[in-house]
Amino acid sequence: MDLNAVTPAFLDALRADLDARCFRDVTPNYLEEPRGRWQGQAGAVLAPGSVEEVSLILKAAHAARVPVVPYGGGTGLVGGQVMGQGPAPIILSLERMTKVRACYAQENVLVVEAGAILQDIHAVATEHDRLFPMSIAAKGSARIGGCLATNAGGVNVLRYGNTRDLVLGIEAVLPDGQIWNGLSRLRKDNTGYDLKNLMIGSEGSLGVITAAALKLSPIPAGQGTAVMVVENPAAALELLSLARSHMGEAVSAFELIHRQGLDFMAEHLPDLRQPLADAPEWSVLIDVGLARGLDPSVALETLFVEAAEAGLVSDGVIAQNEQQRHELWEMREQIPEANRLVGSISSHDISLPLSRIAEFITEGWAALTAMDDVRVNCFGHLGDGNLHFNVFPAAGKSRADYLDIRDAIKTCVHDMVARYDGSVSAEHGIGRLKVADLEKYGDPVKLALMRQIKDAFDPQGIMNPGAVLRAE
Amino acid sequence: MDLNAVTPAFLDALRADLDARCFRDVTPNYLEEPRGRWQGQAGAVLAPGSVEEVSLILKAAHAARVPVVPYGGGTGLVGGQVMGQGPAPIILSLERMTKVRACYAQENVLVVEAGAILQDIHAVATEHDRLFPMSIAAKGSARIGGCLATNAGGVNVLRYGNTRDLVLGIEAVLPDGQIWNGLSRLRKDNTGYDLKNLMIGSEGSLGVITAAALKLSPIPAGQGTAVMVVENPAAALELLSLARSHMGEAVSAFELIHRQGLDFMAEHLPDLRQPLADAPEWSVLIDVGLARGLDPSVALETLFVEAAEAGLVSDGVIAQNEQQRHELWEMREQIPEANRLVGSISSHDISLPLSRIAEFITEGWAALTAMDDVRVNCFGHLGDGNLHFNVFPAAGKSRADYLDIRDAIKTCVHDMVARYDGSVSAEHGIGRLKVADLEKYGDPVKLALMRQIKDAFDPQGIMNPGAVLRAE
Repeated sequence: MDLNAVTPAFLDALRADLDARCFRDVTPNYLEEPRGRWQGQAGAVLAPGSVEEVSLILKAAHAARVPVVPYGGGTGLVGGQVMGQGPAPIILSLERMTKVRACYAQENVLVVEAGAILQDIHAVATEHDRLFPMSIAAKGSARIGGCLATNAGGVNVLRYGNTRDLVLGIEAVLPDGQIWNGLSRLRKDNTGYDLKNLMIGSEGSLGVITAAALKLSPIPAGQGTAVMVVENPAAALELLSLARSHMGEAVSAFELIHRQGLDFMAEHLPDLRQPLADAPEWSVLIDVGLARGLDPSVALETLFVEAAEAGLVSDGVIAQNEQQRHELWEMREQIPEANRLVGSISSHDISLPLSRIAEFITEGWAALTAMDDVRVNCFGHLGDGNLHFNVFPAAGKSRADYLDIRDAIKTCVHDMVARYDGSVSAEHGIGRLKVADLEKYGDPVKLALMRQIKDAFDPQGIMNPGAVLRAE
Repeated sequence: MDLNAVTPAFLDALRADLDARCFRDVTPNYLEEPRGRWQGQAGAVLAPGSVEEVSLILKAAHAARVPVVPYGGGTGLVGGQVMGQGPAPIILSLERMTKVRACYAQENVLVVEAGAILQDIHAVATEHDRLFPMSIAAKGSARIGGCLATNAGGVNVLRYGNTRDLVLGIEAVLPDGQIWNGLSRLRKDNTGYDLKNLMIGSEGSLGVITAAALKLSPIPAGQGTAVMVVENPAAALELLSLARSHMGEAVSAFELIHRQGLDFMAEHLPDLRQPLADAPEWSVLIDVGLARGLDPSVALETLFVEAAEAGLVSDGVIAQNEQQRHELWEMREQIPEANRLVGSISSHDISLPLSRIAEFITEGWAALTAMDDVRVNCFGHLGDGNLHFNVFPAAGKSRADYLDIRDAIKTCVHDMVARYDGSVSAEHGIGRLKVADLEKYGDPVKLALMRQIKDAFDPQGIMNPGAVLRAE
């Protein structure tokens, strides 16, 4: 497919139709991604202020066959937001479309534009005495459009689902500039094919989501958090079953933590208070949100006692107030930052069938440490079967020392994931980083269908070329 | 598109590849639908025993351009399972593919073939001390493949979502016979476009779902049911908000009932015990499933007392045991049967934004009774904004007396739904009944995309021609 770089003439033609505020400087932030593995390029950065302006830009790009890279908060971890190769694209930033269009508190619905920052959405929901449960470590800068484009996961998936489960409707602009108004607030609507979920998770390769009707939830009457020490991941999974038999879906998060992450924090974030004096080999953070009439710390205590009797837990801390809850969560949420400060050789965002996860961790760990002198930090959303299985240099070494085996490490992990019927991208998406993995591990029938859909929606191939599917 | 009827030669060629048990007699049940509005036709009824046999049949049909109508339990209400026009199709019945392939209780996953009957799936889940929450009145004959194809709703959507929300993965055969293995058990898998949700709800027009990995839930520790009398739908919605502020998503069903339905039952199902001596104008059935430590009848009592103080409820019955729970549910679940015995002029499966529903009911009722001497039975899944807004002859008259205004009644309701930003098919789908409605009320950009997807997946147009999209 022959695409054309942005030209001055192309931009001049757009200037006639677009507000001057749409034209941004091409500053470095638009060309970087958090792990520094990819370097983007841009012929222009355009920040439309309305769905109509998005439409005008795509219409022009479609006509001129100019590539377009949608850009949210820039926090994606698989390079979906940076296009390093090919003709210089338009970076289409949603940063000016941040409005809350409407809040229907009685309906538990919030309609927001795609550029709204996740943390701001949380705040608006709270103002209306509601909860928008999707939460990720990057919530202070991630924009909801990016969360939708990547079907982001995060810490509350166990109870509330992935991003796609929290969306009632979307408004989107198709690659040729047509506006699809699918901004429904309905809970049930069986009128035709599910295009909403096709667009969600397509990482900007089928069009640009410009607004969404999000599902809010009531704030649980009582919320509680605990960290419990378990012997191993198998015990952690038994503890999860027990917790759910006590409290059902009131268990909103169940996060596995390995000592390696706590050690990294102790070293690189020494001011962070750790809940247990001796960092345990394995622990879990449990968060619950209960109905009226139940005291969360009592419920967690009851769970702990029963779990201790069953030999599943040996120690623990139950938050007694909001401040302590916050501290426990802070400890969990700073693990990625500590990882970043150490610098991984290779990071893996994987998911596995729950009943095979304990076996996987044992086998994977052994295989990696047999390959070389490395440190593994295995942590994440155990309740969803989603691990961040990240590999780091041995103490005193740097990632540069491992460049020659980095690919082999990734292949070792991903091959094993495939053998265990898991996924090599649980929550971060494919982006540009995992296109080859998708080709290698994905079902070929599915891949062929994806290509057909891409060609039908975006015959010129202008939308985020090279993301999800290889550029043709 | 030129399609060809099934011929003896076509069937003879298939006989070489398929087990003799695949070939069924063309009995009337395959050509009827529950409301008797559509009469199907069939060149053959084929009941494959495996995904490979489904693949062989579709491959042959694709090559010969023979239409294929997938057939589950035959309980659909929009004619998706009966093709009355065009060349005589293959009815592809999933009745022999009823196996439970695997149950992963620790993972809360059940893998079943598409022909499994919903009630049997409930039983298997219960055996494993789990819940498969999707439930509809036709559960004794509906097959899960049909529930998936139509994204069926039912009584537990409020808590557990529609059918699509209860599916982790599917196996499907595409129109050309290719088998897509998407039978994942993963909770999180962001590897490419969401084809699962595209196939779910496509009503057999994009392929045949042959198996699914279903999400199970823990059985709530305590389950309770109550019927409460409310003054009107607005009060019912306030009661719902109150209930959710007490119990969050533990409120698993919230069903609106109008006196008309109870009167129909008293007349046509006189043996059915009604919970309240005097049928109330409006009432709601509330079902809750609570965590350990809470007594459901106490929680419902607490809710009732607080709601009574707020002037929201005036009377009620709280089930004190399983038998009473069953009786309350039986009353709700027999409304469709009573309706059927009366015989509606026109039935409407609609959904509305929650905050507009009370106003809609008032306006709709007034408009319909102004048109003619009719009776309206308005009931359904209020918590989901989903009403069955069905219109019946006046006492002493029959539906035949209203044939001349039947279309006007439907148009009156559907136009009003469109004005209220609602959906003309909340949970039953489009089938053949609502193709024109979709064309009239649907977003044109969405319709064009649907057609593109249909053409990409099924270039010969053999899959369920005339369902969802008009046959070309």
